[in-house]
Order: sequence, then structure tokens, then C-alpha cells
Amino acid sequence: MEYSEIIDIFEKHDRFLILTHKSPDGDTLGSGFALCYFLRDMGKQANVVNSDGFPDRYDFMYVDYTEQDFEPEYIIAVDVADPTLLGSGLLKYQQEGAVDLCIDHHVSNKHFAKLTHVEGGIAAAAQILYCIFKHSGRKITDIIAKCLYTGIATDTGCFKYENTTPSTHIAAAELMAYDIDFANVNRRMFDVKSKGRIKIEQIVTGRMEYYLGDRCAMIAITRELMQSCGVAEAEFDGLASIPLSAEGVVLGITIKQRHTNVYKISVRTTDEMDASVFCGYFGGGGHIRAAGCEIHGTLEEVKAQLLERAGQVL
Amino acid sequence: MEYSEIIDIFEKHDRFLILTHKSPDGDTLGSGFALCYFLRDMGKQANVVNSDGFPDRYDFMYVDYTEQDFEPEYIIAVDVADPTLLGSGLLKYQQEGAVDLCIDHHVSNKHFAKLTHVEGGIAAAAQILYCIFKHSGRKITDIIAKCLYTGIATDTGCFKYENTTPSTHIAAAELMAYDIDFANVNRRMFDVKSKGRIKIEQIVTGRMEYYLGDRCAMIAITRELMQSCGVAEAEFDGLASIPLSAEGVVLGITIKQRHTNVYKISVRTTDEMDASVFCGYFGGGGHIRAAGCEIHGTLEEVKAQLLERAGQVL
Repeated sequence: MEYSEIIDIFEKHDRFLILTHKSPDGDTLGSGFALCYFLRDMGKQANVVNSDGFPDRYDFMYVDYTEQDFEPEYIIAVDVADPTLLGSGLLKYQQEGAVDLCIDHHVSNKHFAKLTHVEGGIAAAAQILYCIFKHSGRKITDIIAKCLYTGIATDTGCFKYENTTPSTHIAAAELMAYDIDFANVNRRMFDVKSKGRIKIEQIVTGRMEYYLGDRCAMIAITRELMQSCGVAEAEFDGLASIPLSAEGVVLGITIKQRHTNVYKISVRTTDEMDASVFCGYFGGGGHIRAAGCEIHGTLEEVKAQLLERAGQVL
Repeated sequence: MEYSEIIDIFEKHDRFLILTHKSPDGDTLGSGFALCYFLRDMGKQANVVNSDGFPDRYDFMYVDYTEQDFEPEYIIAVDVADPTLLGSGLLKYQQEGAVDLCIDHHVSNKHFAKLTHVEGGIAAAAQILYCIFKHSGRKITDIIAKCLYTGIATDTGCFKYENTTPSTHIAAAELMAYDIDFANVNRRMFDVKSKGRIKIEQIVTGRMEYYLGDRCAMIAITRELMQSCGVAEAEFDGLASIPLSAEGVVLGITIKQRHTNVYKISVRTTDEMDASVFCGYFGGGGHIRAAGCEIHGTLEEVKAQLLERAGQVL
């Protein structure tokens, strides 16, 4: 779609509902709230919803947000590649034809909405929204700029990852012209951890095991460990990058217990290995640097299977 | 100085020695090697030196570098604010008049060289060199771009810190047009740690103490701990950011033992507190967010003094 067609849609309708994906991250929330504030500044009614609510972690984007009371007539999903990612709280929008427009940057987008605008080469949905807003010629306020910057920064690991492009940096340069206190945003997004999270990382890192000449590192998170830590289970998400942080490791494996004898495996690799091929061997899949699978058996059996395969491919 | 005056100097001389600061970081080395390669591409002779040698960590910048054999006639220091920072290995260049030109971004630069070019508002010395190189109209090769990107990325915490400006992002956008494999540079600079470092962080984090309603966090690194870890002492540098990484902490204190009853204190604060004022109370000083001091006494006495003062100011 052309940006002008999207702006026409904003102008033509009056009451918008903005859908964001479950387990919300900085990009879906940053995109959602930026769009909401932009539409409200156009004199429209607009709300943002999320199946899991809005986490405290990102509250600087919605500290002054209040829900408006109206019956939506136009539904927009942002950063949502697949309707199932809307989550159980937004089940009714997962039906065919329920979403009017989807704005996204995932090449894997399922084109489930009536209209879809996908730019696969763009680092963040927030960056696409920034281009649309600029194209409109309308004022971008400080809070909109802050939401957009947050979306871009979080989806690129603060401009660290491969998905960062020159246009990502240029968008950041322009957004810094607004009053966004980007250093504080980045501190909250990248440097601050809860006490519980610090404790978990400390325990898990202490138990990290190195194999195959230190080229493979492995952490195992059992249900027993999770319960004994006294920390909320959500804090155990996103530990999979830890094994690959050790120098020389090319294959990082995180084993997380789901039930008795059922383990979820998360694999991270450097450019020396294909994580999706490794996980494909166990019936899983994913991306070239990050993939997953599920293996049944005791922890010792699961480890042995993984290490046997790792030994074959390394 | 005008960029053209600096380029004139490059053109007028033939045999350059480039000095970088001790305990080298990505910016001094990135600036030094970028300048060295740029001068060699101009047909000049040029070498880089460092008091502490060139660490493996940054070897992607100098894997193909070989020292040239010549008698230098023009001495340039890069990213060096004070001659003492050249270190004991470059003692003879600390004398007055020994350095011909200093290119730096520290406002605190001591103007010790015959000519000094300082731009205090620029995030990295490498960013200044990039401007000079562009101004010359000469070709910037991939390895030069990679060195410059590394200097800029490392001095800004990958565009995370307050010193990042729009021009920093624009420089990064332009440098990404070269073949620099920036994602791999960033992985090495920001995500990878040695096994020893992982072990130390794990131990130190496990012993972190919280005080004053969790608004103050403290870690203590004793000589006994350093010796018992079996890890090189250099790996114990730069741990001072750990206490401030805990959510809600506004005052992070790191106590490191120098000798019996002599402790070096590193303080990090959020925008709620002035670290230099806190350390000034103990005869130290520094910046608003990062400062230090030295306190004598037993570890328990040192902790008690720090906590007493922290209780008064928090």
C-alpha cells in the first residue's frame, strides 16, 4: 500500500481500535500507542488493546493514557504477523475479516487482515509508522516520538542486531530531535532488571555447562529450580541468549522443563551454525540464528540426545 | 582547528606515529587504526602504538596490520585527554612538546600537544576522524569504516547513552554502507564475555547486597575473592555498572580492595542522584552519574561509612 492510502483511511474513519500482539514487546506497544496518540491528535477516537494487558516495564509510553468510551468501527493490528498472536484475550479479532488493516514488518505476515501493509526489510513496525506519520505532514508530538523510538530501539537491541539498516539510524536521529529522554528509555529497556531476574540469571549462569571444547554451552531450567527460586514464572522467559554470551561458544542451548519428561529446547547460534537445521533434526524449526524444538525424556536423556547431535555437527 | 588544516598536516608529512591511551578501548584503537590505514592509503608511513599492547578483543581491527619500519617525524595522539593517559610504555611522549597533534572529544582535554583539535560535543573521537576523512574527499576503505564504527559504537554503549546525538546515528548510517559486518562487531563488543568474566559476574551478583529499601545496592570485591576465583585480575575491571542494573536502585556502589584496609569505591547513580557529590564527601570526585573515591578501614567500616552517608542523602 502507499502511505497516502493509509493516511486516507485514518482520515475517512472516526473510531479506531488498535490491536497489539500477546506477550507484548516494545515494538507492538510503541507502534500501538504512537498510532493511538496520532489518531487522537487528528480528532479521532482511538484505543489500544492487548491480550495480556500493558506491562509496567513500558509504562512511560502510557502513563497518561486513558481508555476512551466508544464503539470501534475500524480495527488496525500493528506488528501482528499472525492472528493467533493476538492471544486468547482478543479471540474475536482472530476470525477472518475481523481486522481491517494490519501494519507490520514481518515478511512471514499471514495477510489475515482485509488490508495489509508489510515492509519486510524494515527493522520495526514503529519505523514504518514513523514513515507514514511523516508522509502525512501532521505534527508528531514528543510522546509519539518516544513511543516510536522505543519500538525501534527494542526491536534492534538498541541498533545492535543485523536487522538494523541505515534508515533505522536515520529514523533514530530524527526522533532524537524530540524531547524523548532516549538515554533513560534505553536504560529501562536494556540495563535494568528486576531483583528476581538478577537472581535467576545468577543461578542459571552458575550452573551453565560447557561441552565440545567449550564450543557448546547449555543451561537447564527445571520446574524444581523454578519453584525453589521464589520468583514469578514470567521472569524465566528470554534466558536463551545466555549460553551464547560465552566467548568461543557457537551453539547455545537452553533446556526448559514444561512437564515431567517434556522439555522445550531453545537454540541460539553464531554465524558458524544454522539453528533451524539443528532443531529441525528434532522436529522443530525457526530462524537461522534462533530456533526451537521439544524433546521428551528425562533431563539426562534430553541432554544426551542434544549433545550427541551437537557432536555430529560441530 | 579546521578539518582542512588537519588534512594539510596529513599531506605535508610522511612518517606518522599514532599514540592511543592506556587500557585501550574501542574508540582509541578504532580511531588510531582508522587514521593509520587512512594515512597509509595516502602513501604515507604510519604506525599505531599503545602502552598496554593491542588486546585480542579488538583484533578484527588489526588482524592484517603489520608495523612499518621507519623513524617517525610527526606524532598524533587520538582520544587522549591527558598525557599521563598514554601510560608508562609511552613515557617519552608525555614530555611537553613531544606530541604534535591531538585529536580528541573530551572537553577535559589538557591541550598538552602542540596542536589540539577537540570537539567536546561529539560522542567519539572516531566520529571526528570520520568527519575529517569525509572532508578530504579521499576514499574510505571497508576496514577504515569498520574501525570508525567500532569506536563510535563502543563509546556510546551501542547508541544507548546520553552522549549519542543525531550526528552519531547519521555517521553510523553512512558507515553501514561499507562492508563492516556491524552485527558481528556488536556481538563481540557487547554480547560476548570470557568464561572467567561470566564466572566473576555470577559470583559478584550472587553476593550483591540491597539497602535503604532496595534503593542502594552494593558489591564488594576483596583480594581474597579475586584470588579464589582463579581468574585474571584484569577481568575484575568494569563491574561497577552491576549494582545499578537492579530495578529501583538509584545508588550503585562497588567496593574493590586495593590493599589491606584500602578500598577503591566506584559509584554509579540514576538521574535522581549526583555521584560526584556523593564521592566528593569522601574526598573523591568524577561525573554526575559515575564517580569514585578511596576509603581506608576494614571492609565493614568502609561499608558502614558509605551506608551512613547514603542514608543521609537518599
